[in-house]
Amino acid sequence: MSDTSFKNTPQPLSCVRLGVAGLGTVGANLVKLIQQHSSDIKARTGVDLFVTAVSARDQGRDRGFDMTDIAFETNPVQLANRDDVDIIVELIGGAEGAARDLAEASFAENKPFVTANKALLAHHGPELAFLAEQKNLPLKFEAAVAGGIPIIKALKEGLAGNRISSFAGILNGTCNYILTEMANGSGTFGQVLAEAQRLGYAEADPGFDVDGLDTAHKTAILLMLAFGVRLNVDDMPVTGVRRIDTVDIVYAKELGYCIRLAGFGVLVDGWVDYGVAPVMVKLSSPLSAIQGPTNAVVVQSDPVGRTVYEGPGAGGGATASAVLADILDIARSPFQQEPVFGVAAALLDQILPPPLDARQTVLYIRLRIEDKIGVIADIAHILAESEVSIDRLLQRGTAPQGGVYVVIITHPVTMEKGEKALARFRTTKAVLEAPTVLRVQ
Amino acid sequence: MSDTSFKNTPQPLSCVRLGVAGLGTVGANLVKLIQQHSSDIKARTGVDLFVTAVSARDQGRDRGFDMTDIAFETNPVQLANRDDVDIIVELIGGAEGAARDLAEASFAENKPFVTANKALLAHHGPELAFLAEQKNLPLKFEAAVAGGIPIIKALKEGLAGNRISSFAGILNGTCNYILTEMANGSGTFGQVLAEAQRLGYAEADPGFDVDGLDTAHKTAILLMLAFGVRLNVDDMPVTGVRRIDTVDIVYAKELGYCIRLAGFGVLVDGWVDYGVAPVMVKLSSPLSAIQGPTNAVVVQSDPVGRTVYEGPGAGGGATASAVLADILDIARSPFQQEPVFGVAAALLDQILPPPLDARQTVLYIRLRIEDKIGVIADIAHILAESEVSIDRLLQRGTAPQGGVYVVIITHPVTMEKGEKALARFRTTKAVLEAPTVLRVQ
Repeated sequence: MSDTSFKNTPQPLSCVRLGVAGLGTVGANLVKLIQQHSSDIKARTGVDLFVTAVSARDQGRDRGFDMTDIAFETNPVQLANRDDVDIIVELIGGAEGAARDLAEASFAENKPFVTANKALLAHHGPELAFLAEQKNLPLKFEAAVAGGIPIIKALKEGLAGNRISSFAGILNGTCNYILTEMANGSGTFGQVLAEAQRLGYAEADPGFDVDGLDTAHKTAILLMLAFGVRLNVDDMPVTGVRRIDTVDIVYAKELGYCIRLAGFGVLVDGWVDYGVAPVMVKLSSPLSAIQGPTNAVVVQSDPVGRTVYEGPGAGGGATASAVLADILDIARSPFQQEPVFGVAAALLDQILPPPLDARQTVLYIRLRIEDKIGVIADIAHILAESEVSIDRLLQRGTAPQGGVYVVIITHPVTMEKGEKALARFRTTKAVLEAPTVLRVQ
Repeated sequence: MSDTSFKNTPQPLSCVRLGVAGLGTVGANLVKLIQQHSSDIKARTGVDLFVTAVSARDQGRDRGFDMTDIAFETNPVQLANRDDVDIIVELIGGAEGAARDLAEASFAENKPFVTANKALLAHHGPELAFLAEQKNLPLKFEAAVAGGIPIIKALKEGLAGNRISSFAGILNGTCNYILTEMANGSGTFGQVLAEAQRLGYAEADPGFDVDGLDTAHKTAILLMLAFGVRLNVDDMPVTGVRRIDTVDIVYAKELGYCIRLAGFGVLVDGWVDYGVAPVMVKLSSPLSAIQGPTNAVVVQSDPVGRTVYEGPGAGGGATASAVLADILDIARSPFQQEPVFGVAAALLDQILPPPLDARQTVLYIRLRIEDKIGVIADIAHILAESEVSIDRLLQRGTAPQGGVYVVIITHPVTMEKGEKALARFRTTKAVLEAPTVLRVQ
């Protein structure tokens, strides 16, 4: 700090005025949290925090907080233009439209921008970071990944002295609820999904969650932060949990594993192996202990080693408190001194799909096959020709739709060889449906 | 931010020069980490980080890093007076002497102070915080609790929008290694301790660890942060793990529990119940999954709910990286805008010992008694007279030192009544040694 002096401290910030766009569960919880905890916040930070303006679809609705002295904007983008708003909080959602327009307007008007919007960041994170960095403005998004767990802060600040070599996270509570309930014997995927919908853990249209897209958005953000990369989230290899059958859960348990939907990134010889996929994790591993809608992230870094972060991944209160933490961080140090994703946005490397031979993985392959003499021999033959070495092969029970199940656990194999075998299974007549494939940890 | 403007950004800090006092494992790792990662650090923070001066007992020793251009001070306190040092890093240890003198000199000379010294903070945290806050200087100590886990940052910043209602942590790797090894059947307390000493997990003089004093220091720091209190750490109720017998481990397992040494703080009706004690935790709980020398902290807060933080609690690399995270935080926002412990040091409430009837706990009590008719009846009688209701009473096996073991699990009971019964057991002739008591989670 040779160019500054600790003898001349700047004025502490005394008053921060927020413009909040979006008053769904998170937005309403945030305003209530600020109104209820304002004296605590003042004591901790010396800052008077006010919500001065909001925007929402329905102005009239009672949201359980005091709207006196809070201005209302029909067009959320107008919040950025208000002189009585210092920080923009975006809780609208969606990668395009009002959310994106508001982010751009916020930086154009020299206002810090706080968001819980994973889709926006997964699709436009580097571009928005570039706008923020050009003006030295904070762009913060703790609530966008794993709700109440301060994982963004941990990666960006707590582990700032580390090189991250891998992460794997349970980032979608709906999927984890479904997988743990299936493991508890509560029914098939369809039955457990219906119950999750009844309890409010799953949306009426569950595809965004169960097909892994929500996890992909969060994984994209963690990849940018952990490895200083940019990526097209639509190119990410993503498999959801729809294909997981009760029979896979039973086999997993017998083998000493359980199944978790993981968003992951692993440095392998300079490549990043990444994606979203159901993974068999050892019953002794931290992710296996994560039950129900809880989220968790395991990070491997040097020199710290393995750290694990666990907590609620969703819910209005948890998410609102993560948004509030970002706001308080800005109040504490309002001038962004560092790149949004750890590396200047202009310098983020485009991530490349790892070569299929970059990494060896143990695969769990479940096939439904015709119950005929010789089929198992054919399968073993295909594996041998693809140079996929078998650790275990089990024929177990008849499938309700006809045929029998065969489960193969491979020795460690490159995805190149694995894909070769899988492609042949897909065109083998005696294999009655597309194989179910899981990586084994 | 009505009194500032985002249009006028201050000069980013371009150069930070460190004075490092203490070149043991952590200090040497820190200097190496900075020398090796300087280009990463520059990319992430825009800061050139240098170690310009050090102090250590032995100047001549080769510590595996380049001492060229690093000045050496025989007296560590002199580091604070050097014009070429911007931040003081104290890795000497100890609550008094050079460490404390250096902290005071650092603030007197308007220099931020980073430390890994839990004893210093446990004993003098509020006084040092007062000095730091008077001058708006950072006092940072991420490495003082749970080594590589960014728990200080999580409590202070990540959960800043929350009210913390309780925390419980495994904060001493030596104790957790011993307890998990005993549970794995590796031997008695003495045998496992000897093995831990051989492996370097335990000191030659293990008392500081196994008697719970190290955990008490760390717990004191977490109490200050979580609840805005000050306390005399010497008054903390502390029980270590020396009294844990293999027989307790076996009983715990049978009952569906395991034993963990926990530092804890719980808000109960406006009181803080706090201390260090071996606790029986459910096998399904997050602390039960923590094996070997790993640390973990479970935090309950509103509105987030339960979050869990897990990672290596010690080791030169992990601790050095926590120190480096603090240094980078200061480089990022050099002016302390907020109280060191969340509440201004002058306003920290003195913690009071909770009244013995403040909280009901299930107790596990193990007695070694004379193997005579009528003794069990006497024990049951004492419990009844103390109004301690028995959930389970088991007589199990003969003790190697003579007599038999009796284990009592109580119904929830106030410590007042529990202490009454324990006091009577201590003076009962047929009870052959002081009872072993554990809280049951």
